Amino acid sequence: MSAPIEISRHRCFGGEVGFYRHASLEIGGEMRFSVFVPEAAKTSKVPALLYLAGLTCTEETFMIKGGAQQHAAKAGLILVAPDTSPRDRRHPGDDASWDFGLGAGFYLDAMQEPWRDGYRMGSYVSRELPQLIEANFPANPDRWGIFGHSMGGHGALVTALKMPEKFHSVSAFAPIAAPSQCPWGEKAFSAYLGPDCTLWAEWDATALIEKGLRLPPLLIDQGLADQFLERQLHPHLFEAACVKAGQPLTLRRHEGYDHGYYFISTFMADHIAHHAKALI
Amino acid sequence: MSAPIEISRHRCFGGEVGFYRHASLEIGGEMRFSVFVPEAAKTSKVPALLYLAGLTCTEETFMIKGGAQQHAAKAGLILVAPDTSPRDRRHPGDDASWDFGLGAGFYLDAMQEPWRDGYRMGSYVSRELPQLIEANFPANPDRWGIFGHSMGGHGALVTALKMPEKFHSVSAFAPIAAPSQCPWGEKAFSAYLGPDCTLWAEWDATALIEKGLRLPPLLIDQGLADQFLERQLHPHLFEAACVKAGQPLTLRRHEGYDHGYYFISTFMADHIAHHAKALI
Repeated sequence: MSAPIEISRHRCFGGEVGFYRHASLEIGGEMRFSVFVPEAAKTSKVPALLYLAGLTCTEETFMIKGGAQQHAAKAGLILVAPDTSPRDRRHPGDDASWDFGLGAGFYLDAMQEPWRDGYRMGSYVSRELPQLIEANFPANPDRWGIFGHSMGGHGALVTALKMPEKFHSVSAFAPIAAPSQCPWGEKAFSAYLGPDCTLWAEWDATALIEKGLRLPPLLIDQGLADQFLERQLHPHLFEAACVKAGQPLTLRRHEGYDHGYYFISTFMADHIAHHAKALI
Repeated sequence: MSAPIEISRHRCFGGEVGFYRHASLEIGGEMRFSVFVPEAAKTSKVPALLYLAGLTCTEETFMIKGGAQQHAAKAGLILVAPDTSPRDRRHPGDDASWDFGLGAGFYLDAMQEPWRDGYRMGSYVSRELPQLIEANFPANPDRWGIFGHSMGGHGALVTALKMPEKFHSVSAFAPIAAPSQCPWGEKAFSAYLGPDCTLWAEWDATALIEKGLRLPPLLIDQGLADQFLERQLHPHLFEAACVKAGQPLTLRRHEGYDHGYYFISTFMADHIAHHAKALI
């Protein structure tokens, strides 16, 4: 595993936000990510919190718009935010639409040609990236949490469901909660995974809860003025699966809030506190 | 004065961030601005704080990157952030460089052709925009503060120096503190104002302090790893003028911080507190 190369570094709330690129084995090309290292990590290893962003976002979105650094600085948490898809090696049609291909890796390992060659964001965010961070930053390998937004909120749920031994705290902002049952998910899953719905169920958080997998007590925030709520997000399906399965879930519905980072930043302090409680 | 037209509105920290456009009389064309209205303004008029952004920024920059809404929500302050130049009617050469013309209005009233026709950001931010806000938002017309970053940090100083009866609190992040004596300012002032340096002094905060104008007790934050500190910003010249004039100034120099919004957001809470103390 080759060390990440620094693109830029900026002091922020007593710690540092850095942007990096590295040669990813899973992706088979260069990937970019950002890291916030709090001042507390100068003297000892600290827990790390992985944030997965939504459709069209990059490794910059969360650090610029999320407003998380101030809370991570106080709690003593490392923040890690990868890009949302491969971008280095291109695939035919990867820029044909904003909700598939570039910026839309859906944090799964693709099975279909041509995507199976490189679109392995599932393995990248759950294994390769945490290992890279542990090897190059003062992150405690035994104290990881994960969260995200929309496509990345769902990615956080699935990643934690599949790797409970690695991720000890989970939360999400407006996740695509049942991707097998919405247009964004149907488009992505059918292209990345193919027509076999048993494969889809392996990458669908609602299906994985129904199958018996479990998460730590979970926090989800959802805006009720979210323009994608009715057609794409379906938190009620995930909620019903959790109730049936006895999965602890705090799903908060917020009047007037939409799908963007003005919503996310409003509730960021609560999410960092949720993770800090479990990780520190 | 025609009412502003809403472009979008987003709930944020219990209040709302809105983006608007309107026909500006000073600029002679459409201008855009953003406003954060805190929940406290539902029941009574509240003080308003005008933020002037730096070179290349727009009316979005501050609301996306500044992290001010959470603090303004708590303090009960309206935040207003205009664009950084005219953009609607174009002028020959206005996009030839990133530090002049579009995105670089320098918050002054141009005297030279062709800029004198429309490049009147000085009058726009000090008079027309506050009046527009007072007429259309729950802002107390007697309680205005002003702050900004870089070009806009200087714009805040000059605007408050010229309109002490309107702006009762002032602060700046990394202002271009003596524009008559740095390359950015020389380029802008010679094109907007012409070769007569007596005109330059009317729009230069250091010169205005030397001339005897005064500000309320002032807060300035400056990063010591700022890439523009040595060549462009010259806070020491402004500081020397303040010391000589007996102008109260708290100029904080911060090891390791650069010129960007990771620096600004780090010290945003202190700036909002500085204004709230004076305005509320």
